Amino acid sequence: VRVDELGEFGLLQRLLPQLPQSDAVLVPPGDDAAVLAIAGSVVASTDVLVDGVHLRRDWFSGVDVGIKAAAVNMADVAAMGASPVALLVALVLPADMEVTWVDDFVEGLRQATAPVGCSVVGGDLSSGSVLTVAVTALGALDGPPVLRSGARPGDVVAVCGRLGWAAAGLAVLQRGFRSPRVLVDAQRRPDPPYAAGPAAARAGATAMVDVSDGLLADLGHLARSSGVQVRVDATRVAVDEPVAAMGQAFGVDPMVWVLTGGEDHALAATLRPDAQVPPDWRVIGEVTAGEGVAVVGAEVEGTGGFEHFSRS
Amino acid sequence: VRVDELGEFGLLQRLLPQLPQSDAVLVPPGDDAAVLAIAGSVVASTDVLVDGVHLRRDWFSGVDVGIKAAAVNMADVAAMGASPVALLVALVLPADMEVTWVDDFVEGLRQATAPVGCSVVGGDLSSGSVLTVAVTALGALDGPPVLRSGARPGDVVAVCGRLGWAAAGLAVLQRGFRSPRVLVDAQRRPDPPYAAGPAAARAGATAMVDVSDGLLADLGHLARSSGVQVRVDATRVAVDEPVAAMGQAFGVDPMVWVLTGGEDHALAATLRPDAQVPPDWRVIGEVTAGEGVAVVGAEVEGTGGFEHFSRS
Repeated sequence: VRVDELGEFGLLQRLLPQLPQSDAVLVPPGDDAAVLAIAGSVVASTDVLVDGVHLRRDWFSGVDVGIKAAAVNMADVAAMGASPVALLVALVLPADMEVTWVDDFVEGLRQATAPVGCSVVGGDLSSGSVLTVAVTALGALDGPPVLRSGARPGDVVAVCGRLGWAAAGLAVLQRGFRSPRVLVDAQRRPDPPYAAGPAAARAGATAMVDVSDGLLADLGHLARSSGVQVRVDATRVAVDEPVAAMGQAFGVDPMVWVLTGGEDHALAATLRPDAQVPPDWRVIGEVTAGEGVAVVGAEVEGTGGFEHFSRS
Repeated sequence: VRVDELGEFGLLQRLLPQLPQSDAVLVPPGDDAAVLAIAGSVVASTDVLVDGVHLRRDWFSGVDVGIKAAAVNMADVAAMGASPVALLVALVLPADMEVTWVDDFVEGLRQATAPVGCSVVGGDLSSGSVLTVAVTALGALDGPPVLRSGARPGDVVAVCGRLGWAAAGLAVLQRGFRSPRVLVDAQRRPDPPYAAGPAAARAGATAMVDVSDGLLADLGHLARSSGVQVRVDATRVAVDEPVAAMGQAFGVDPMVWVLTGGEDHALAATLRPDAQVPPDWRVIGEVTAGEGVAVVGAEVEGTGGFEHFSRS
């Protein structure tokens, strides 16, 4: 069955029951708008994925797109120190797409949101020639937000989550392979450490970012916003085994993927030197006076130019 | 200058200063997410506009698209009885579009939101072959939401805002004309009566909808959700002068535009018969036991089939 045969109303009738609603949802999808009870302040972020730009339908299943669209937005919420509460999803579908693809997409949304207690509370469907997914994530924040601008000299720099996996997975896909599955899935189905954001906030994180453009690029945003230099000690940045193995197979220094690859949606934060670094966070550097990002402790092929790195 | 020459970062740097931020915005655009102080519960709705489906770039300027994208979403928020507080805007732009178009789009967002005290707090830009705008509106609700499902027999039915103007404007555009400007602008730059939503809620409205699909269609949604029949007295539904004049010019019964045309984003509500109908609302009918929508008091060409109308 093609989506144009079912129509918008039929699609929504089919999809909505698949999406569980948390206690925070006072009015579920189906009215003019959803209504939410959000304790504290409200965190909001939006990201759009376009077929051919951010994803490829031949590489990404409906489940993959649903997971990715949810994850990239929930990670932005977590990077403020907040917990994701709700998603709103605008989906533009070519008329000839199969309804089963949309079922899979909704299943992907469910897989990504249900473990986090986040509900899909709104959506809009439209026909259009290019598959496009725009997601807005809303979160609840019960303390002050952790901005990009709060890092101070003397802070430690820490990360939580995978680095380089999604970039290695993209390299695998670009070379026409579909395995190792663990790397390909890292690219297609990011699994950010959402709870690590509020944990870092509670530990007194002075600044935090979601690693979407690459560790050095996103630390560069943090450094610029804070007016400091971030020094990354490459000897403290782990290269996980699947990433290292794939680098060897492809003749690529895997540290390039780790330092410059985005899309894993790890979190990077700075904390006062006497702060207790929360579980699962690894200290990888320090904050000093200055500007930009410096990589020290190793000569990394292809990243030598990141001294005073300022990619926007 | 084309948008691909400026890039996403350059575009955002250019656009963000044009968007004023209200006191409700604790963290403005520029970090991983915005942070808002929203009193009461949070109302959220999303709608997507696609070039060639919901708008045509040869008919709609950048300002028009900005106004329309903001208005359709803020109207959904108002229809719950809430006040719009913030918008998040995902914009997919063909690479060859002029940056001045984007400037105009942002100016349209500003024109639609500033009078309402609503801030554009987030956004995402992407290249893509089809101009697509996905907007999420967030609102603040300080009482219970006004749902579609609360209408009861004996209630009066009232509307606030224009009916038929946008449909008449679309007929003008479809025939290749650009005037009368007042009708064309009604189609391109909807101006929903946002404050009338909270006013109706305070007056004890039992149910409310945004008229986006057409008065009879949206009252049909309300009737179905509430398990009632809505009876519209056509003798009480005004046909405004520009709509009447255009109907005469085109040989169309203008009541068809008034009863079935969407896109003006008027509000329709039901209230207890002893409620004080707020200013600017007009009573046009009543709620009875039964189902669907009945038009009484006039034979309207093309709408005779709306007895027990159940268009979804």
